[in-house]
Amino acid sequence: MSVILAHNNYGKSKVRMVKVARHGDRHDLQEINVDIACEGDFETAHTLGDNSKVLPTDTMKNTVYALAKQVSDIEEIEAFALRLKDHFLNHNPQLSRITIEIDESMWTRILVGGKSHHHSFTKGGDEKHTTKVIATRDMVTIESGISDLLILKTTGSGFSGFIKDQYTTLPETTDRIFATVVKASWLYAKPEVATRTTWQGVRQLLLETFALHNSFSVQQTLYAMGENILENFADISEISLSLPNKHCLLVNLSAFGMENNNEIFVPTDEPHGLIEARLSRD
Amino acid sequence: MSVILAHNNYGKSKVRMVKVARHGDRHDLQEINVDIACEGDFETAHTLGDNSKVLPTDTMKNTVYALAKQVSDIEEIEAFALRLKDHFLNHNPQLSRITIEIDESMWTRILVGGKSHHHSFTKGGDEKHTTKVIATRDMVTIESGISDLLILKTTGSGFSGFIKDQYTTLPETTDRIFATVVKASWLYAKPEVATRTTWQGVRQLLLETFALHNSFSVQQTLYAMGENILENFADISEISLSLPNKHCLLVNLSAFGMENNNEIFVPTDEPHGLIEARLSRD
Amino acid sequence: MSVILAHNNYGKSKVRMVKVARHGDRHDLQEINVDIACEGDFETAHTLGDNSKVLPTDTMKNTVYALAKQVSDIEEIEAFALRLKDHFLNHNPQLSRITIEIDESMWTRILVGGKSHHHSFTKGGDEKHTTKVIATRDMVTIESGISDLLILKTTGSGFSGFIKDQYTTLPETTDRIFATVVKASWLYAKPEVATRTTWQGVRQLLLETFALHNSFSVQQTLYAMGENILENFADISEISLSLPNKHCLLVNLSAFGMENNNEIFVPTDEPHGLIEARLSRD
Amino acid sequence: MSVILAHNNYGKSKVRMVKVARHGDRHDLQEINVDIACEGDFETAHTLGDNSKVLPTDTMKNTVYALAKQVSDIEEIEAFALRLKDHFLNHNPQLSRITIEIDESMWTRILVGGKSHHHSFTKGGDEKHTTKVIATRDMVTIESGISDLLILKTTGSGFSGFIKDQYTTLPETTDRIFATVVKASWLYAKPEVATRTTWQGVRQLLLETFALHNSFSVQQTLYAMGENILENFADISEISLSLPNKHCLLVNLSAFGMENNNEIFVPTDEPHGLIEARLSRD
Repeated sequence: MSVILAHNNYGKSKVRMVKVARHGDRHDLQEINVDIACEGDFETAHTLGDNSKVLPTDTMKNTVYALAKQVSDIEEIEAFALRLKDHFLNHNPQLSRITIEIDESMWTRILVGGKSHHHSFTKGGDEKHTTKVIATRDMVTIESGISDLLILKTTGSGFSGFIKDQYTTLPETTDRIFATVVKASWLYAKPEVATRTTWQGVRQLLLETFALHNSFSVQQTLYAMGENILENFADISEISLSLPNKHCLLVNLSAFGMENNNEIFVPTDEPHGLIEARLSRD
Repeated sequence: MSVILAHNNYGKSKVRMVKVARHGDRHDLQEINVDIACEGDFETAHTLGDNSKVLPTDTMKNTVYALAKQVSDIEEIEAFALRLKDHFLNHNPQLSRITIEIDESMWTRILVGGKSHHHSFTKGGDEKHTTKVIATRDMVTIESGISDLLILKTTGSGFSGFIKDQYTTLPETTDRIFATVVKASWLYAKPEVATRTTWQGVRQLLLETFALHNSFSVQQTLYAMGENILENFADISEISLSLPNKHCLLVNLSAFGMENNNEIFVPTDEPHGLIEARLSRD
Repeated sequence: MSVILAHNNYGKSKVRMVKVARHGDRHDLQEINVDIACEGDFETAHTLGDNSKVLPTDTMKNTVYALAKQVSDIEEIEAFALRLKDHFLNHNPQLSRITIEIDESMWTRILVGGKSHHHSFTKGGDEKHTTKVIATRDMVTIESGISDLLILKTTGSGFSGFIKDQYTTLPETTDRIFATVVKASWLYAKPEVATRTTWQGVRQLLLETFALHNSFSVQQTLYAMGENILENFADISEISLSLPNKHCLLVNLSAFGMENNNEIFVPTDEPHGLIEARLSRD
Repeated sequence: MSVILAHNNYGKSKVRMVKVARHGDRHDLQEINVDIACEGDFETAHTLGDNSKVLPTDTMKNTVYALAKQVSDIEEIEAFALRLKDHFLNHNPQLSRITIEIDESMWTRILVGGKSHHHSFTKGGDEKHTTKVIATRDMVTIESGISDLLILKTTGSGFSGFIKDQYTTLPETTDRIFATVVKASWLYAKPEVATRTTWQGVRQLLLETFALHNSFSVQQTLYAMGENILENFADISEISLSLPNKHCLLVNLSAFGMENNNEIFVPTDEPHGLIEARLSRD
């Protein structure tokens, strides 16, 4: 019998970095997390223990810090990911493909006397700006996105007209809470359009669509969100959305002689619906 | 030999609730988590399995939902905790002491076209407004606070002049990152002063003090934060602060011929310094 | 412009269940977690809010419990996943493809006086037996595996002969700790060979290979583990392994006049190497 | 107004260590986590930024590693904690009180061909052996324990005869699942009796009592567990137990025409009952 190495990748994950750009009138702050995964000619590393083509993952970590230092200002994560992939591909002929994933946390300046402070910040929650750069020697794609953005609307959402079978107990409703943790990522048509301005525009339109949409289902709202992005951002060629349904269960207060008019809910983490789709242009 | 029940408490933890106040011009939203712990005459429950004085923790959970429903508007967590303790003490003569802890998450309205939306929200991170009400039949105390508030300053912090012994390797520094996750709680001199306005004032002054303080140590900044609160809020009788030192380590780039002028750091979660103190009035 | 729904799936995640088989001489216990994802004819749900073909995820949850009840004894998770996919495909013509993932936690009987107790158990850690059944109306595959199995060897592992570049600082070593959290999954050649006996045999051989292998790299040990499985289990057609390198860093004690002969280490979670491969038959 | 420093402590938390004792016939492995908290004469550090009496928490971390190296074999965590407190109190006259907390993870040898392997291990879950040493210059106490030990019994547990009020919906039951995560700690009458043999004996008796007890409530079982320890271990002067009630909810299958004879349950994490008590000798 013969065994073959059908696929392999290796790299460094969770390379965390805080970068400070020390301007006179202000310090700028960036906190990122970098994951690197390499593919290439690593057959003999696996089969023979021959490490002569293996760039250590520890060196990948060092490279993140050294290349970050080469640009003194804060750099957009898409640009940094492109520089990292260039470095690794240029210096490592054994690589055929590399994936660089970066996520950036949100920090906001502390207000002192109503004015943004020079060098002090608070972290704005779990939401992250993400990017994933995949490159070979012939192509590169950039897929940026948002993760861990928790949103909720208290009305404007229903769910009815669904299939009923012998195991159905869910009542139909025309008014429920809709809560979800947005994970969205979109593919840029070409690398140079991957700007922070676009990212912020997409984020805002996703939020507005969620707020304004009269939802018949998570599926329908997800589609509306994605469709709006594709219709308004010509440089985005496809968008993926993953929306867990963070159910808020209406508490039954009838045993206590009370009517619960969509006021008192139990938020739950599990089980949860999970609705996912990818929309693209025709 | 004789065994005695030196202490006991029981109750329900992690009772989660989302409450919606459905006003015409807007929906208000509140997400809280309630922990209840009861002490009292429960000796025979432990020793004999006699449950005749045991209010089930499931009933405590139901009570949280029922009492929340009794107030149609969003209620401050301190007021809700007081109502809960009143209910349990009034209806349960076997109780001698009760502790109600509530934490409230932060939600902010989604902006649509620059205006706050009627019923759609985003969650603002891990920061929580906390309160702890402890009551017997003769007294009640309210200790409110903040937890999980991550703050960072990129300069204005040093650490030097400390003890050196045979195991010291830490270099002195006059410029380092100072990052911490604030856990603060303060005791109100009397229940009626526990208002949201005070809470917001304390939060703002803690942030401003952190931003403006020229720090020689976490200890000194912690003290300055607490001292400022006691000096500016006459209704607060003591304050406790717990500040983990979330070390951001300066990356050594000298091996790559680079000088790291406090620009590139590795944020770490462990190990971490932990500095805690309680300040009170003389 | 026209938008198309390039891909979509929906279902229920984290459906948790504890099942008890109440035999006279013993109770058997099973704790599982089920994730269900459906694909099919859901275009109008997304585009029109038409739910007439949507089986609610709440019903999927109910179905898990109802179908579990139909088999009174504890059932292997592969068999249960197959029954679930049969049910959903048979009753839902709008489905074209379904994925059922189940993981099972490890529980062991408490020993009382040296004998296994009739109905009392302790949980044996985070390790899980996993399975993933993917089915259309024409095919079905079963990929079972192990997750969260933390293993460590204190010697028999080195890493040298690797590429050195301007960012390399890692020293070569012929003796280091090798710690990893095994995530392995293997594809059965046909559904009927997916037995618990095979699963236990694979688990044992993975552990033995890890223990006995003289490792030149994580890559090489990963390959040896996978190769051994394919060579010894004819019914397995491919195996995927994901091995994070949970680095245990040698503490530098030289500043204290001490030599650290691979005795004192700092275990770290981040950053970590991540080595992944899939091996198949030629 | 005058502010006073009512209490303060500082130290290092989450100092992780893996220690290997390299014997010829086997390697022994220990993974621990150390938390250190110091109290003493630190007023001027807080009020003046005077660090001349401050032993850096970084030095505390180094001291853990250096002192671990001084004992070549694996050391019981109680003995190591005592050595650490001696070191810090002896070398730091400004300290008045120190708390050393250590928890140790469970590792077991991999079996190869039925025999324990020389140097390869698997981690046995989340359960930890804990100890907490508190010392001043005049006294020392050792409180050891267990944390994160998840146990479950499928019968032999009921809950009835409790108070019913207007918010009660819980039905009485004579047969339910009882699941909890044991957190137990016991105070040794004197330091020299804090041995591993005693620890293992306590652990086993806690498990056996849980298994054999016919439970009318968590309170009663908790008491039986504690009472058994005090009656059988003369060197233990008090024991604290914290037992969250990890409710396993019986699934209502009646809507599907099925009777659920305590077979199908949903395990839940929240909300959970929390029952705590401390038992001591008269």
